[in-house]
Amino acid sequence: MKLYDSTMAPNPRRVRIFMAEKGVTCDNVQIDIIKGENLSEEFLAVNPRGFLPTLVLDDGTVIDETVAICRYIEETHPEPPLMGTDPVSKAQIEARQRHMEFDGLLGAMDAFRNSFPGFASRGLGGNVGTIDAIPALSERGKTMVLKYYETLNDHLAGSKFVAGDAFSVADITALCTIDFATAAARVPIPDACEDLKRWHGEVSARPSAQA
Amino acid sequence: MKLYDSTMAPNPRRVRIFMAEKGVTCDNVQIDIIKGENLSEEFLAVNPRGFLPTLVLDDGTVIDETVAICRYIEETHPEPPLMGTDPVSKAQIEARQRHMEFDGLLGAMDAFRNSFPGFASRGLGGNVGTIDAIPALSERGKTMVLKYYETLNDHLAGSKFVAGDAFSVADITALCTIDFATAAARVPIPDACEDLKRWHGEVSARPSAQA
Repeated sequence: MKLYDSTMAPNPRRVRIFMAEKGVTCDNVQIDIIKGENLSEEFLAVNPRGFLPTLVLDDGTVIDETVAICRYIEETHPEPPLMGTDPVSKAQIEARQRHMEFDGLLGAMDAFRNSFPGFASRGLGGNVGTIDAIPALSERGKTMVLKYYETLNDHLAGSKFVAGDAFSVADITALCTIDFATAAARVPIPDACEDLKRWHGEVSARPSAQA
Repeated sequence: MKLYDSTMAPNPRRVRIFMAEKGVTCDNVQIDIIKGENLSEEFLAVNPRGFLPTLVLDDGTVIDETVAICRYIEETHPEPPLMGTDPVSKAQIEARQRHMEFDGLLGAMDAFRNSFPGFASRGLGGNVGTIDAIPALSERGKTMVLKYYETLNDHLAGSKFVAGDAFSVADITALCTIDFATAAARVPIPDACEDLKRWHGEVSARPSAQA
């Protein structure tokens, strides 16, 4: 397998951590999104939408979306399970993983993309042509991220993990969201979010977090 | 089971169609999002995020997210399969379903929420407090929807369905996106998108589309 990857971006990191938790390795091709390499003719021939990560199987099959890649790895390498083991746990983990995306990651991406000078005409990711950044959307994104931190902190006051009682894909999405929101969107975790900070320290200490 | 539903909104319709394709029925509770019933104390006690649809199982378990509900139904009622049957088809359908969300549905929601007068201080869905609408985001959303129509039209020129060679959850998301974009965001399918119109006519003729 070959993973088209971009070290600094949150979505490829989600897949790298997911694979590391499973002990799965593959070839790695770095694509620099800041330089626009994801919009090059060469990469668009692999993934016409221009998004990373993208996984290419040995038979040439392309899986071009973050959670879909995780699904493929989960199905082909079931242990340890990261997406649930029965109908209810599968649904609950999927729900929590999507909360992390829609409540947190989208806000962090809005905050970054609509304030980073290099993306002034790339207000949306992928192969969508010129889209002007919207400064007010950057501010809204920061507001969303702060609400997300508070809500997740409340959850983690009573739970060791983001979904259920074991580490899952929902923890991976949350970790990548928070590290991206902190580093790129510049919204640090407030000191008052002590349970979120405790959880963040624990998941960051897992070897997979270095992937 | 009990489904908290809102007839006019696209996400609850995705679940209703999914269940209809499976022949699954359940109790139905209508919540009026326009009137803000999803933010009432009563509903927030069921789903603190304030989103619809929400499914409550007979043992009281709450599944509070659209695709997670579909996952639960798929796992408990496998026939006919709507989310794939092997690692590659599961991944490919999930990828396509998420393309429909991120390329189309998010844009349609941005277009509607940020221009509808009743949502001037509810620029984001759910229980997030006062968020001002951003008019420029409504315009961006319309641009996204038009690009989405064109890209999906190109795909359907060579395919009968949105993902693979059978009707799937990806078709359901696309149908609900397009009908919402047309009716609420007021972005009709351009006449030039003949393959998209042909597909739309076919999936709209399925009995499940009336759910």
